[in-house]
Amino acid sequence: MASAPHIEPGKETLPLFFGVDVGGTNIKIGLVDDDGNTVVYRKIPTLETEGPQRYMERTTEVIQEICAEIGRPLSDISAIGLATPGTMDIEAGMLLEPHNLPNSYNFPIRDCLSQLTGRPVIYANDANAAAFGEYWLGSGREFRSMILLTLGTGVGGGIIVEDLLIDGEHSHGGELGHIIIDFSENARKIPTGQKGHLEAYASGTAIIKRTHEALAGDLQKESSLHIRVDNGEPLSPLMVSQEASRGDAISLHIVMETARYLGIGIVSLMHTIDPGAVVLGGAINFGGHETSLGRQFLERIRQEVKARAFPVPAEKTVVDFARLGGDAGYLGAAGKARAVTHRDSLNS
Amino acid sequence: MASAPHIEPGKETLPLFFGVDVGGTNIKIGLVDDDGNTVVYRKIPTLETEGPQRYMERTTEVIQEICAEIGRPLSDISAIGLATPGTMDIEAGMLLEPHNLPNSYNFPIRDCLSQLTGRPVIYANDANAAAFGEYWLGSGREFRSMILLTLGTGVGGGIIVEDLLIDGEHSHGGELGHIIIDFSENARKIPTGQKGHLEAYASGTAIIKRTHEALAGDLQKESSLHIRVDNGEPLSPLMVSQEASRGDAISLHIVMETARYLGIGIVSLMHTIDPGAVVLGGAINFGGHETSLGRQFLERIRQEVKARAFPVPAEKTVVDFARLGGDAGYLGAAGKARAVTHRDSLNS
Repeated sequence: MASAPHIEPGKETLPLFFGVDVGGTNIKIGLVDDDGNTVVYRKIPTLETEGPQRYMERTTEVIQEICAEIGRPLSDISAIGLATPGTMDIEAGMLLEPHNLPNSYNFPIRDCLSQLTGRPVIYANDANAAAFGEYWLGSGREFRSMILLTLGTGVGGGIIVEDLLIDGEHSHGGELGHIIIDFSENARKIPTGQKGHLEAYASGTAIIKRTHEALAGDLQKESSLHIRVDNGEPLSPLMVSQEASRGDAISLHIVMETARYLGIGIVSLMHTIDPGAVVLGGAINFGGHETSLGRQFLERIRQEVKARAFPVPAEKTVVDFARLGGDAGYLGAAGKARAVTHRDSLNS
Repeated sequence: MASAPHIEPGKETLPLFFGVDVGGTNIKIGLVDDDGNTVVYRKIPTLETEGPQRYMERTTEVIQEICAEIGRPLSDISAIGLATPGTMDIEAGMLLEPHNLPNSYNFPIRDCLSQLTGRPVIYANDANAAAFGEYWLGSGREFRSMILLTLGTGVGGGIIVEDLLIDGEHSHGGELGHIIIDFSENARKIPTGQKGHLEAYASGTAIIKRTHEALAGDLQKESSLHIRVDNGEPLSPLMVSQEASRGDAISLHIVMETARYLGIGIVSLMHTIDPGAVVLGGAINFGGHETSLGRQFLERIRQEVKARAFPVPAEKTVVDFARLGGDAGYLGAAGKARAVTHRDSLNS
């Protein structure tokens, strides 16, 4: 994240883009140049209860301030990339029923921002935008195609093939938590009742559920989790991660089982898209490359992939953690705006 | 299939493409115009034992003859699309180890044909080419994205999103028989030993295996299949289809279970790609739209999709049979050559 509001010497004439990532708590706004450098970055509270018209107005004010800071008119901005959670209709530019933006249902957010700024706005699902960010500037930058799998409360993700973000014909592309890994009658369910979806096994919610089940198991196994839960702490993926790091067997088992489920889902994606890389993002990564547990988790995923995939993709597909953290969304929104702008200029 | 070797009036200046679809038995060669009309079509025996250099020479002779017939030099052909079975390396233009072309291992087939003809050759996997054919001219023509699922000895397919054929970074894109639908320890295996792949449940081979199991079941149920098998006929998907049409319960059960497995796989694809349409091709379609059994089979797939997918794609995604039959491969090979040619001319 650059803080000095200036454009690198020699790059003054390159196209400029804004990336806007709307979340339930904050809106991240970045001015990004054609090479992916963040020229200016701001974060403002969403204050979602004020409604989408108002938070888009405040976003526009920040965009105008940033333009003033760098001494360029807003008309110099090639395009603005806008990312929001779904459900949404990307083609229509509509928020439909975004669960964590409860005051923003059925709102034409793309055209609202475009009217306020006078600039073209390219709309994307936030997980898909994050995938585009990793593809353009993060763990996927060396590849022609990449899949991001995000592990948080749910399981999400995004798919990019040769600069094309797979939004889907009905704005449901990259709903990677909802590939089916178990067709059996007694498969686990997601909250909406559908059975056997990856998210029912590998999400943060599923980790908590599976851990509760393991603790309540017939053998009532010894676990340091018992002590914390008995002390009134609510079970969380973080708690499981901490106790697994400290050697608790049940916690470690839960982490490794999560890796196994993800590996199974990844194989389906490899045989579908055959991407250069599959990248793991989201809030839950068990420490990532920084910890022994994170590295074990990653190795267990890779092991499952190697056991189940065809030899060539099993050997060549890179499976790794994401790199951009919470910046992936606004960077990818800007990146998608850039890709669409460049494509349109080729086609015109 | 056009037989009269002439180009429609007013279209003499449109780009022309050849599509070449190499199979174990035949090579299909079509001259296709920019609108997808087949101007001339030929089929020659592959005679694979003569080796790939020789069958590419014979293909080139046919191409030259067709050009002579329409009174145009070979240099007027914009590009040639070449489809073969895998394994292959698309980027390198290499056949690697195609099981049904046993004398063609590790052969640079793309450059061979390009050198013989002096034209650019665009290389594709045959199932992916068939998908592109359906997308361009068949059941997918009204959509921006489409998935073809082929049901034959194995399960294959291809994915197209906005004119982009998803070949994959390691030539393994669209290996749709190898998404995992069952992660359990006792999941069915494909011949190479991997567990839980869709192909282990829904392929022609799997249909035969599951039918044998059903006939040998504890109850030794009554089935008209017993009579035919006892008469020495080998069990086949066609036999299952015939007896199901005649009302045999075990046969009908096998067909409907196959539909169920395919529906499960299709849901994973819908939540990944979210295509406009999912199209069922290949030799096994239980009669397609022409028979009551075929229509029941399709309805059972749709029912499974509706039960398991998110509401919006469940409602909007078209699931239907393919239209082009055995022509899809050469048409799609020509179509991919056309798409790449148009893309390159935009980018240059």
